[in-house]
Amino acid sequence: MVKVRLEHNILGANELLARKNRNIFSTQDLLVINLMSSPGSGKTTILEKTIDSLNGKLKLGVIEGDLYTDQDAQRIEKKGVRVVQINTEGACHLDAGMVDKAFQELPGDNLDLLFIENVGNLVCPAEFDLGEDLKAVVISTTEGNDKVTKYPLIFREAGVIVLNKIDLLPYTDFSLERFREDLAQINPLAPVFLVSGRTGEGISEWNEWLLREVSAKRA
Amino acid sequence: MVKVRLEHNILGANELLARKNRNIFSTQDLLVINLMSSPGSGKTTILEKTIDSLNGKLKLGVIEGDLYTDQDAQRIEKKGVRVVQINTEGACHLDAGMVDKAFQELPGDNLDLLFIENVGNLVCPAEFDLGEDLKAVVISTTEGNDKVTKYPLIFREAGVIVLNKIDLLPYTDFSLERFREDLAQINPLAPVFLVSGRTGEGISEWNEWLLREVSAKRA
Repeated sequence: MVKVRLEHNILGANELLARKNRNIFSTQDLLVINLMSSPGSGKTTILEKTIDSLNGKLKLGVIEGDLYTDQDAQRIEKKGVRVVQINTEGACHLDAGMVDKAFQELPGDNLDLLFIENVGNLVCPAEFDLGEDLKAVVISTTEGNDKVTKYPLIFREAGVIVLNKIDLLPYTDFSLERFREDLAQINPLAPVFLVSGRTGEGISEWNEWLLREVSAKRA
Repeated sequence: MVKVRLEHNILGANELLARKNRNIFSTQDLLVINLMSSPGSGKTTILEKTIDSLNGKLKLGVIEGDLYTDQDAQRIEKKGVRVVQINTEGACHLDAGMVDKAFQELPGDNLDLLFIENVGNLVCPAEFDLGEDLKAVVISTTEGNDKVTKYPLIFREAGVIVLNKIDLLPYTDFSLERFREDLAQINPLAPVFLVSGRTGEGISEWNEWLLREVSAKRA
């Protein structure tokens, strides 16, 4: 039973650091969103479109999680947004300690909204609290209709759900009706946004919601 | 450094069981393929189309890996193929011990080809040898062009690569040229099949290759 005990220890240590992060974010009135999805669901593209569409209305920061590369951080940097890259060196999720270190490296302060883009993975990231306010789960219409029931933990924990690649809906067998039915069973409360990171469809509604959440955090 | 040592132990124990599996598969002249991908890349759909298209030319078995459900195993069973479900209860990959137990439950013997469909995840499954002959990695055109460079381990370990959802290529920004260039850097030897699990395009070429590999294993 060594494995189980060790996992408890790792999660216990993570909880302490997540609490530390949450306190720091809270004293800065900073809304923090942990962005999670399968590889290739379009997290970074959604961030790019979100930055463009917000057009300076919020002071943004991004922490990018990736196994080895800084490709996503480079894309965010091109948009003029403050970004720090975490390379997990093969680890399949971010943890609160990595976010603690990365946040200390994030230039400047007085941010309104911090996105933490997790490693592309629907399993492991869901188990680690980073100290965020909200977990946002991105899923795309091309991933099939069984993801909500097959990966229930991450969808249950989601504070908001973004269905991406809505532009490809006509070319897939994805059923919006079944998607909503499955979510109603597992997580009936999380708002769901239908967007296309490629065309920008639905991004303004998503941004309106972000603006409201940032205000609510400050209130 | 407890964590590192434990991981070594887990991997060491896994290696022993993988060797055991490999010996059993070998004495039965059974070709075993470990099928891996992101969630929603289309592994199960490709298996369905493969079964239909092989039309009894090979005696097939399937071991299905999933966190909690048996949705994929039910789909395979409908095709009249012998299947055993492994539920990892939240674990993010299969290991050799799970496959050992599942194989003992697989009805009948004298199989030609065994597919092991791993948990949908591009990170963790790549680290665990199951005793298979080949790792097959499925990636789809809708997942973007950065997956090969962002998840190098799984693509490096692949003995064969299947690019799925080729029917959606015209509606995406996916570049076949860049995909081939990235693979040339990381894994220039693995054959690449372009298929559509939805339309069946490319499945016959993939099946011709499977038939040749089964023959080669017996020779």
